[in-house]
Amino acid sequence: MSHAHSLTPLDRVRVVVDCMGGDHGPSVTLPACKEFLASHPEADLVLVGIADAIAPASQWPRCTLVPCTEIVSMDDPIEVALRRKKDSSMRVAINQLKADADGKARGDVVVSAGNTGALMAISRYVLKTIDGIDRPAIASVIPNERPGFTTMLDLGANVDCSAEHLLQFAVMGSALVSALDGTAEPSVGLLNIGSEVIKGSDTIKQAGELLRAAANAGQLNYYGNVEGNDIFKGTVDIVVCDGFVGNVALKTSEGLAHMLTGFLRAEFKRHLMAKFAALVAWPILRHFKKRFDPRGYNGAALLGLQGLVFKSHGSADAYSFRQALGRAYDAARNRLPEQVHERIVETLRAAELPPKDEPVRPAA
Amino acid sequence: MSHAHSLTPLDRVRVVVDCMGGDHGPSVTLPACKEFLASHPEADLVLVGIADAIAPASQWPRCTLVPCTEIVSMDDPIEVALRRKKDSSMRVAINQLKADADGKARGDVVVSAGNTGALMAISRYVLKTIDGIDRPAIASVIPNERPGFTTMLDLGANVDCSAEHLLQFAVMGSALVSALDGTAEPSVGLLNIGSEVIKGSDTIKQAGELLRAAANAGQLNYYGNVEGNDIFKGTVDIVVCDGFVGNVALKTSEGLAHMLTGFLRAEFKRHLMAKFAALVAWPILRHFKKRFDPRGYNGAALLGLQGLVFKSHGSADAYSFRQALGRAYDAARNRLPEQVHERIVETLRAAELPPKDEPVRPAA
Repeated sequence: MSHAHSLTPLDRVRVVVDCMGGDHGPSVTLPACKEFLASHPEADLVLVGIADAIAPASQWPRCTLVPCTEIVSMDDPIEVALRRKKDSSMRVAINQLKADADGKARGDVVVSAGNTGALMAISRYVLKTIDGIDRPAIASVIPNERPGFTTMLDLGANVDCSAEHLLQFAVMGSALVSALDGTAEPSVGLLNIGSEVIKGSDTIKQAGELLRAAANAGQLNYYGNVEGNDIFKGTVDIVVCDGFVGNVALKTSEGLAHMLTGFLRAEFKRHLMAKFAALVAWPILRHFKKRFDPRGYNGAALLGLQGLVFKSHGSADAYSFRQALGRAYDAARNRLPEQVHERIVETLRAAELPPKDEPVRPAA
Repeated sequence: MSHAHSLTPLDRVRVVVDCMGGDHGPSVTLPACKEFLASHPEADLVLVGIADAIAPASQWPRCTLVPCTEIVSMDDPIEVALRRKKDSSMRVAINQLKADADGKARGDVVVSAGNTGALMAISRYVLKTIDGIDRPAIASVIPNERPGFTTMLDLGANVDCSAEHLLQFAVMGSALVSALDGTAEPSVGLLNIGSEVIKGSDTIKQAGELLRAAANAGQLNYYGNVEGNDIFKGTVDIVVCDGFVGNVALKTSEGLAHMLTGFLRAEFKRHLMAKFAALVAWPILRHFKKRFDPRGYNGAALLGLQGLVFKSHGSADAYSFRQALGRAYDAARNRLPEQVHERIVETLRAAELPPKDEPVRPAA
């Protein structure tokens, strides 16, 4: 296996920001952008938003402002976002990744905290998928007890997946982890309800066969089946599942974490002795929060598109949005879309399926 | 809606115990049985196991010993358990629920900590499903922040479910919660990836339609879609999902809880100051453990069979196994199989599908 690090990183990275997206819009995105610029001297920003709202950034260095006239709201139906709001900050931001008349794009990666469904639909419509990928997927990281992070996909873009889709997710996830963490051959597990190959639905069993075949052809570091608890054990670098299962697992975890921390907080508040204990336990609880706070690892990748899009949590604060900008920057710098494309071509070749000859759109 | 409490509870309940099942066998099951007998004067026990192993119980009151010669191990393939070990403690225990030559069964409910796949297969083979139920399901409870417990099914018996199966799970879950908690019309949520009815796979959308129709016919208290975090919020009494999704959600939660408690434990051990904090925080952490310890709510119901079977965690200790005995006792006392059957007949009638006329086997 030799796909990792075969591409030179970009010298400069142009990060396009949908400044109007998310629950808080520019009041969160602009401060995050300012801090991000200060800590990333090799980044340039393209800020997209309503002219007045982004005006505070007009004098910032390494910063281009692109005004627009519309905003996709968090509850706009996908059809409205896609067909009626063609001058939205989200749409205009994604347009920056497309080559213009002289063949050049104006950005390398987009970050938006807007409505996930709209972001996926517009990205797919404007950018199209990489050749060999049927459906884009959403990938994010989850802290594990190794300690480290488990990358999981799909997290909700695709509710009914075929075995081939799951294989594509595995390939895209491998490229993502290689690009972001530098791991040459990250391990991949197939989320199932038991470790034996006979477990699971027919689709899952077929996916297991495809993944084993890809591993035998040297295209993937396939571990085998994993179960729900392996996500947090950190058994593998990447957990592959369909979007329905991934979304349920993620939201179930969020719900449990919320319940447990809420319980601890309430108990520590309830008793005088407990208040004292909380004081003494404070550094531990702070470390606990820091380690597991989802704000710290914000930024889900939309994978499989001819262009790089990152989704921030809608409720992100400036600290959290800055993490998403950082992840997007790293992925663009390490040329994630081209890595995904290379991996897909190799995997299809190994599977003796001829890839179509349409090339991936270069990132710049 | 008038199905709840239409049946008189049993005066006495005969609990059949597979004494050899689980990781620890009689060293756990017998002490649990002894304590259970002491706290449940209206219970009789039927203890099934290798003669020598169960001999210590030979002088106990209200206790019948049924010797057998084989044991289903935790890793026996289903085929071996079902076809080759016909005198296993698991099989003989389940046989006690069947009527013998004079038309009477020797037990009202079976509890086993053995291999789940084998227990389901043998139960289904020996007992058959209730008329109107295609597939039995596994239901268990999960603590929520209301605070209370959310009942969830299916947890792994069925990996590919149709919309009709999900409706059957909803009906069976309602009967279970009515029988165990006395809630007349427990609320039911359909596990999905969003609250809107257009969300999810085709199967999920169809299931939503069937559930709404059953609710309109007065057969179910249907809430609508719920998401993963609602399991722990306690939004509904019962969460219905296919066995693949349910199993992943459950194991993901177990993994997360394990990681978080492990982290807290390690941190409190690491520093001297933290050790002191742990001492002060001890009552809180103990309360935390007591509230969320899965040992305290052990005992999953196998629903939809012509007979009542409860599954204990394989790793249960005596305290935990006793909880499973208690849940099984309560369900049998409140005549859960007949309640499920009544509900199914009513729901089929409301849906204008003629139920077949084969009656449910009486529990005694």
